[in-house]
Amino acid sequence: MRAGKTYRMGRIFGADGRTLILPVDHGLTFGRVEGLEDPVARVDELLDLPCDALLMAPGLTRMTADRFARRDAPARILTLDTFFRLPGEQEAGAGLAASVEQAARLGVDCVKLFMAWNVPSRERSETLARIAEVVRRAEEFDLPVMLEPIAVGEERTPEAIAVEGDGARSAMEVGADIIKIAYPGPELMAAWSAELRLPLVILGGPRTGEADAVLTLAEESVEHGARGIVIGRNVWQRPPDVARRLMQRLHEIVHG
Amino acid sequence: MRAGKTYRMGRIFGADGRTLILPVDHGLTFGRVEGLEDPVARVDELLDLPCDALLMAPGLTRMTADRFARRDAPARILTLDTFFRLPGEQEAGAGLAASVEQAARLGVDCVKLFMAWNVPSRERSETLARIAEVVRRAEEFDLPVMLEPIAVGEERTPEAIAVEGDGARSAMEVGADIIKIAYPGPELMAAWSAELRLPLVILGGPRTGEADAVLTLAEESVEHGARGIVIGRNVWQRPPDVARRLMQRLHEIVHG
Amino acid sequence: MRAGKTYRMGRIFGADGRTLILPVDHGLTFGRVEGLEDPVARVDELLDLPCDALLMAPGLTRMTADRFARRDAPARILTLDTFFRLPGEQEAGAGLAASVEQAARLGVDCVKLFMAWNVPSRERSETLARIAEVVRRAEEFDLPVMLEPIAVGEERTPEAIAVEGDGARSAMEVGADIIKIAYPGPELMAAWSAELRLPLVILGGPRTGEADAVLTLAEESVEHGARGIVIGRNVWQRPPDVARRLMQRLHEIVHG
Amino acid sequence: MRAGKTYRMGRIFGADGRTLILPVDHGLTFGRVEGLEDPVARVDELLDLPCDALLMAPGLTRMTADRFARRDAPARILTLDTFFRLPGEQEAGAGLAASVEQAARLGVDCVKLFMAWNVPSRERSETLARIAEVVRRAEEFDLPVMLEPIAVGEERTPEAIAVEGDGARSAMEVGADIIKIAYPGPELMAAWSAELRLPLVILGGPRTGEADAVLTLAEESVEHGARGIVIGRNVWQRPPDVARRLMQRLHEIVHG
Amino acid sequence: MRAGKTYRMGRIFGADGRTLILPVDHGLTFGRVEGLEDPVARVDELLDLPCDALLMAPGLTRMTADRFARRDAPARILTLDTFFRLPGEQEAGAGLAASVEQAARLGVDCVKLFMAWNVPSRERSETLARIAEVVRRAEEFDLPVMLEPIAVGEERTPEAIAVEGDGARSAMEVGADIIKIAYPGPELMAAWSAELRLPLVILGGPRTGEADAVLTLAEESVEHGARGIVIGRNVWQRPPDVARRLMQRLHEIVHG
Repeated sequence: MRAGKTYRMGRIFGADGRTLILPVDHGLTFGRVEGLEDPVARVDELLDLPCDALLMAPGLTRMTADRFARRDAPARILTLDTFFRLPGEQEAGAGLAASVEQAARLGVDCVKLFMAWNVPSRERSETLARIAEVVRRAEEFDLPVMLEPIAVGEERTPEAIAVEGDGARSAMEVGADIIKIAYPGPELMAAWSAELRLPLVILGGPRTGEADAVLTLAEESVEHGARGIVIGRNVWQRPPDVARRLMQRLHEIVHG
Repeated sequence: MRAGKTYRMGRIFGADGRTLILPVDHGLTFGRVEGLEDPVARVDELLDLPCDALLMAPGLTRMTADRFARRDAPARILTLDTFFRLPGEQEAGAGLAASVEQAARLGVDCVKLFMAWNVPSRERSETLARIAEVVRRAEEFDLPVMLEPIAVGEERTPEAIAVEGDGARSAMEVGADIIKIAYPGPELMAAWSAELRLPLVILGGPRTGEADAVLTLAEESVEHGARGIVIGRNVWQRPPDVARRLMQRLHEIVHG
Repeated sequence: MRAGKTYRMGRIFGADGRTLILPVDHGLTFGRVEGLEDPVARVDELLDLPCDALLMAPGLTRMTADRFARRDAPARILTLDTFFRLPGEQEAGAGLAASVEQAARLGVDCVKLFMAWNVPSRERSETLARIAEVVRRAEEFDLPVMLEPIAVGEERTPEAIAVEGDGARSAMEVGADIIKIAYPGPELMAAWSAELRLPLVILGGPRTGEADAVLTLAEESVEHGARGIVIGRNVWQRPPDVARRLMQRLHEIVHG
Repeated sequence: MRAGKTYRMGRIFGADGRTLILPVDHGLTFGRVEGLEDPVARVDELLDLPCDALLMAPGLTRMTADRFARRDAPARILTLDTFFRLPGEQEAGAGLAASVEQAARLGVDCVKLFMAWNVPSRERSETLARIAEVVRRAEEFDLPVMLEPIAVGEERTPEAIAVEGDGARSAMEVGADIIKIAYPGPELMAAWSAELRLPLVILGGPRTGEADAVLTLAEESVEHGARGIVIGRNVWQRPPDVARRLMQRLHEIVHG
Repeated sequence: MRAGKTYRMGRIFGADGRTLILPVDHGLTFGRVEGLEDPVARVDELLDLPCDALLMAPGLTRMTADRFARRDAPARILTLDTFFRLPGEQEAGAGLAASVEQAARLGVDCVKLFMAWNVPSRERSETLARIAEVVRRAEEFDLPVMLEPIAVGEERTPEAIAVEGDGARSAMEVGADIIKIAYPGPELMAAWSAELRLPLVILGGPRTGEADAVLTLAEESVEHGARGIVIGRNVWQRPPDVARRLMQRLHEIVHG
């Protein structure tokens, strides 16, 4: 691996090769999300909690630059794109909202792109072409690329999970350095981790009923090969004391 | 903030961090608007009134350059794009009508883009991609970017206001330096100002029945956190004496 | 105004600020037009008549370059684009057919673009984006830009004229140096001339029944503020002697 | 005319300003055409026959480069684009399949583009925009451009011929140096040759019943002003001895 | 042929001008394909078998670079694009997923593109335009280009085979150095090999019932002019011992 990428991957995954990532990038696509109404204040709170990296969009990254201007701050991953699909729409909308140059200028350690995979063929090929161009530019800056293949808005059926598995393979082939994916269950988790030979990080998704369900998810994921978890709404959409406890436990699960 | 941006933001917002902006950019998109039939003459009249900045399209900016060629002239904000949607159309039309290079050449202090947010997903993603490219170029010139998220042609329902709140968050995340938005009522005005941590300036919109309604709007907005107001038709679509009185009162409200 | 533009505008409008322009650019879009079957021969005839500038497409400009290779030749304005809309079509076709670089290489004094304004919103925004890019490039060469806003194929109702008035304002705002437009009647002619503060030149359109109708059109236009006329088919689609008389009278009307 | 263009036009048209062109470029668009199954072998046979230039697509041009690597070889014209329209399709497909840079690298004397003119307005404007960009690039290399306006798949009615006449004029205006067109009959042949002031070369089209019909076509065309003929299938889709005789007669007709 | 291309073609085809290529690039388009769930492990197994080149997508190429970092390793061919068409879709999706620059950086010996040919005219012309641009860039790096014309998802009727024959000719004309195609039967195999004058390599396609059917396919193909075979699923979707035997026999057939 080239020097710049080695350096940045080390900042994200640390010595044990595991990472606990806090996503607070929802505003770019979803707007004023509950629990993230004041993203800067949220980041300030979260910075008290154990965490290896934050996932942010360009605006929040710029506004919080001073918080990270110290050697022991968490790493930062920049969200580069959006995906919109309103209820009842035939055609989704996806595209870049930032550039690799801006990422390099901001000094982040990684760029992240979305990969909606339960979409028409034309959207699939446009998505890969857009990602491929970002990968090409990112190579020039030694910037790692995180890709997130998702069957958007579908139930967790075996078919939907298989679509995401196919997306994960396409993501690996188009040049992902890290793959962010929904937990596919123990067997596939172990299989994909071994097969893709890239660090897989598991997303938490919308807040689930039980706070502790997140811990079970994290334990199972890590136990079966996940290199990290990316859990946001299930943490910061809960009361501060619950959120604090969750992050501490998640940190133990990931790094313990 | 980089030096060029600090300088330009200071020219727009002044010492007290507040601004009274006069928009006269309607011609680019709306053509020969009532009260703005002769935009140069209108600018000459308006320049007698207290005002911190004018919002203009490229042609008018070029034609009135000499009026601003003095050290104590108001700042100038350049409108870069258009948004058309004729009655009964399914698909709107939006695109650039000027470039960041032209803005830099004209010496303006800021560029402004529209962000229609009650549109299909494809138009949303195209709008963000277009804005993101302008933001990238503007960074190279240290030019501030003003974004205007709007639920076009909708009644002021809580849903419409929420759409604009989501648009404002997306605007912040894609890289806005200033957000121009419709007044969302006292609670949300205070909330958004605190949350977005960017100067919000409130638009006046079409002329309303009562002249004084504008003053109430301005007072409420500023009282609840607005950093300025952008009122055009409600001023220059009224008789000169009314317009003068309104501007003087607005100036007192904003800066008093 | 920058030096190159001052020089070229002076070549088109002369000392009295008025101009008589002969359009012979129809072939690019309309093909083998009656009266212009042999455009080079036509140009040779027309060059005997009093005329300040010719409007031509790239091919004819190239073929007749030697005729203009003298210091007292008329100026040349290059048509850069096309607009097609066949009977019964929902969607028109518009686009560039030449570049600013070619214009600069050919040494013409101005470039001219069409602006169909009674079109869907998407076509409007695409047209402005295309024009804006040409304006940006033309600025680099100090080349004046002539824009022609038209309600294509409509009767001369007040509504159609108002659409063209809106288009003229948009044309001014996107960066026109000269606006070519259909005569809107005395009041609007006077109003637009005063308001737009750009030279307006009036088009003759298809041949009308009476030859002298053209003279009336020219007289009225100039009397109410037009800075010139652009009359082609109404001249060269008539017998040579009639055409000669018309041009001589038009020259007197414009410059007398 | 610039030096490079003068040189290349001279190589195509020779001293008497006439040319006999053999088109063997059908494979790019039509695939494995009868009589051209083995294009290299076909070229080798044809090179024994009198001929001024061959029209070829990039692959065949590259494969036969050695055959033309001598001072007295025929000139080569490179086909740059394709036009597809399958039975029953509403929308045709057209686009570039090679670049001016490749043409310059291959050392050909001219580039050739297709101009389907009985198409919707949008396709017309896209075709002209694509051609205009090629013309702009070709100017930088002094490369002549041949354009071929066609009413695709229509009977030879006066209306269809008029459409091609309009296309020929548009071709001249967008910057053609040579126009390839279907024979429009004696009067129009004479008229277009005089009016367009560009060398017109006549295409042979699909094989007709009678071999000698080609000779009549060539005689009439040249008699009425054609500067050359471009006949392929009517030659090489016939038996070798017939093809040889035809070429010899065609050469006499064109140059005799 | 230019030096860089001579060198790379020699690495693919060897001294006898024949090649046995193993495709393992399926993940990019098809995702987690049976038998290729763990592509790196699969490559490691396959590297024990006789083979001249592997066809891989960018991710796998990057991950296995060290395996090929020796002078006697097989050559590598990089898949640059994708083609998606889900059941029931009218419109397919095709596009680039990597660039010629990435290929040059990775040090591969060839780039490969797909050419779906039983598609609407618009898709055909877009495919050729996309390929032509890759050909132009590849020329700058002396990189050979392999094209694969296919009648996707059709039965092997004479019509479907003829469509692929037409595609093969278009592939040759747009600039292919190698053509990958389905076996068209003995007569056409011999004919196309002679006519196209490019090395044709035959694809194996989905696993067929009988393992030995592959050997018959290879024998027939090579006997009638194929310069190589590209067989993947029919090898690595079978038990290891069967796969080993098949590869050894295929190597004998191709090089014996």
